[in-house]
Amino acid sequence: MHVLVIGAAGMVGRKLVQRIAADGGIGGRDVSKLTLVDVVSPAAPPGIPAEAWAADLSAPGEAARMVAGRPDLIYHLAAIVSGEAEADFEKGYRINLDGTRLLFEAIRQEGLRQPYTPRVVFTSSIAVFGAPFPEAIPDEFHLTPLTSYGTQKAIGELLLADFSRRGILDGIGIRLPTICIRPGAPNKAASGFFSGILREPLAGREAVLPVPDSVMHWHASPRAAVGFLLHAAGLDTGPLGARRNLTMPGLAATVAEQIEALRRVAGDRAVALIRREPDETIGRIVAGWPRRFDAKRAEALGFRAETSFDEIIRVHIDDELGGKLA
Amino acid sequence: MHVLVIGAAGMVGRKLVQRIAADGGIGGRDVSKLTLVDVVSPAAPPGIPAEAWAADLSAPGEAARMVAGRPDLIYHLAAIVSGEAEADFEKGYRINLDGTRLLFEAIRQEGLRQPYTPRVVFTSSIAVFGAPFPEAIPDEFHLTPLTSYGTQKAIGELLLADFSRRGILDGIGIRLPTICIRPGAPNKAASGFFSGILREPLAGREAVLPVPDSVMHWHASPRAAVGFLLHAAGLDTGPLGARRNLTMPGLAATVAEQIEALRRVAGDRAVALIRREPDETIGRIVAGWPRRFDAKRAEALGFRAETSFDEIIRVHIDDELGGKLA
Repeated sequence: MHVLVIGAAGMVGRKLVQRIAADGGIGGRDVSKLTLVDVVSPAAPPGIPAEAWAADLSAPGEAARMVAGRPDLIYHLAAIVSGEAEADFEKGYRINLDGTRLLFEAIRQEGLRQPYTPRVVFTSSIAVFGAPFPEAIPDEFHLTPLTSYGTQKAIGELLLADFSRRGILDGIGIRLPTICIRPGAPNKAASGFFSGILREPLAGREAVLPVPDSVMHWHASPRAAVGFLLHAAGLDTGPLGARRNLTMPGLAATVAEQIEALRRVAGDRAVALIRREPDETIGRIVAGWPRRFDAKRAEALGFRAETSFDEIIRVHIDDELGGKLA
Repeated sequence: MHVLVIGAAGMVGRKLVQRIAADGGIGGRDVSKLTLVDVVSPAAPPGIPAEAWAADLSAPGEAARMVAGRPDLIYHLAAIVSGEAEADFEKGYRINLDGTRLLFEAIRQEGLRQPYTPRVVFTSSIAVFGAPFPEAIPDEFHLTPLTSYGTQKAIGELLLADFSRRGILDGIGIRLPTICIRPGAPNKAASGFFSGILREPLAGREAVLPVPDSVMHWHASPRAAVGFLLHAAGLDTGPLGARRNLTMPGLAATVAEQIEALRRVAGDRAVALIRREPDETIGRIVAGWPRRFDAKRAEALGFRAETSFDEIIRVHIDDELGGKLA
């Protein structure tokens, strides 16, 4: 199986590629070749023949070049994140909307030359939903994004479903929860603090909490996110019907619950490193975000996330800190 | 007030323009100028200074030319209908998606030169929804189109909401019910028979019914559609919040109920002109369509449709047949 990963240098992309290389395949199927693309050249893992290059998906001809090798499975993870897509209107629409459409269109053109229907796994986001919400958001809730990023992801979902319905590709849209704990340096996402208040204290550093402890949100670990993507690769899409986009399972937790989990795992000294510094802009953005989902469809299809924040913190310690606290 | 109507030569567009000209304004506000555009040159009505030309909204520079006069109110009614958008993939995406985006983008560019936030009334469709459905579809039901046309309209809705949220335009999306009774020659919409089985017998001609009598669907007259568009022009968008797209009220009726209304208004002789000729393709398409909505939001905002099929038939006789049957 030939696998193309677009956005392979991003946090989730890198972990996905590492995992495929470590497993030597996906769900028991051999991966014979990896094609890795991102705006910066992605690292090729050892053990699997790989080709990697830097490209802007929205630039003329780039999408065609990516699908020219007719990959069997395409992961489309590339995106301008929420904060940046809100700050830079044109860039967000160009990459998140035009880039996605150009990819799907390149697949269609490839299929016009010779039959071709790759599995396409597209990372969407819970940002396709916007307040007001019911207490737990059902799978049938309407798309009401309150950011340009969420709008662009919702449009990607609609395109994915229509191109799938027409047999141009075999798509699955994965609405990721907020990924927690994001490793490494903060990115421009307004949701960054959900990770920061755990990651930084676990490393002995101060972290800023810009919202009240009562804020509830929907989380899954990077390891769970990679698990979703791998599971989507082998999923029988028949039972999905025309509804190709799935809200992933996750864990609904308040900031207070996150902090108590941190206390249980790393003690009071870690918790003391969280500094409360309310930020009205972030508070307003977060107030429009979903808190809890009833992700029935994805659960029935076998997608799994963590069930406690202690577990999410331990995944971070295992995967990022070599299994032990500093 | 300067009003631009894109799609002014279409059935609803013509009726809208005639009504504006007859009233001399919209909801008590004077219309000082009409700009009318369509792929074929629209007819300018008497009584109001009007400019009319033929243009393809998706061609370079055309959208900018349309908004260069900085109209206060823009009706965007132009679309490739469902049957044609399904048959011609590229044309549907070019006009219904690219055309809409180019229009919104031209408004943004105009606003970058000098502040400008026109009211934009966008005709969407109940085709943004696809089966399976609850018995009555609530305002919060997700967008699950089962046609490329429905997909393109759903994307237009998302763009309208995001561009409105950003203050680029002041948009209202109007999800029209199936318009019944459509006057004139059938178009390429798969829903054509809903009108045909009434319009043709009322004119003494045979009509083909391709689906069972038990099929239920959601209807409003052309006059009601024009009423929605006029009401949207003056609506206070504050209470809409970020949710700019509204399912219009309509009448849920089975084909059998349509036929019984025809019998009451025009007698058995008219009903005898309906010939049953099942068409599996149309049957399959229609099976994916909505049957009934609970259009609470639009009703609360003052949008009104017919409440019986007798009324819908009488509107047709009044508006199209000079008030009397042949």
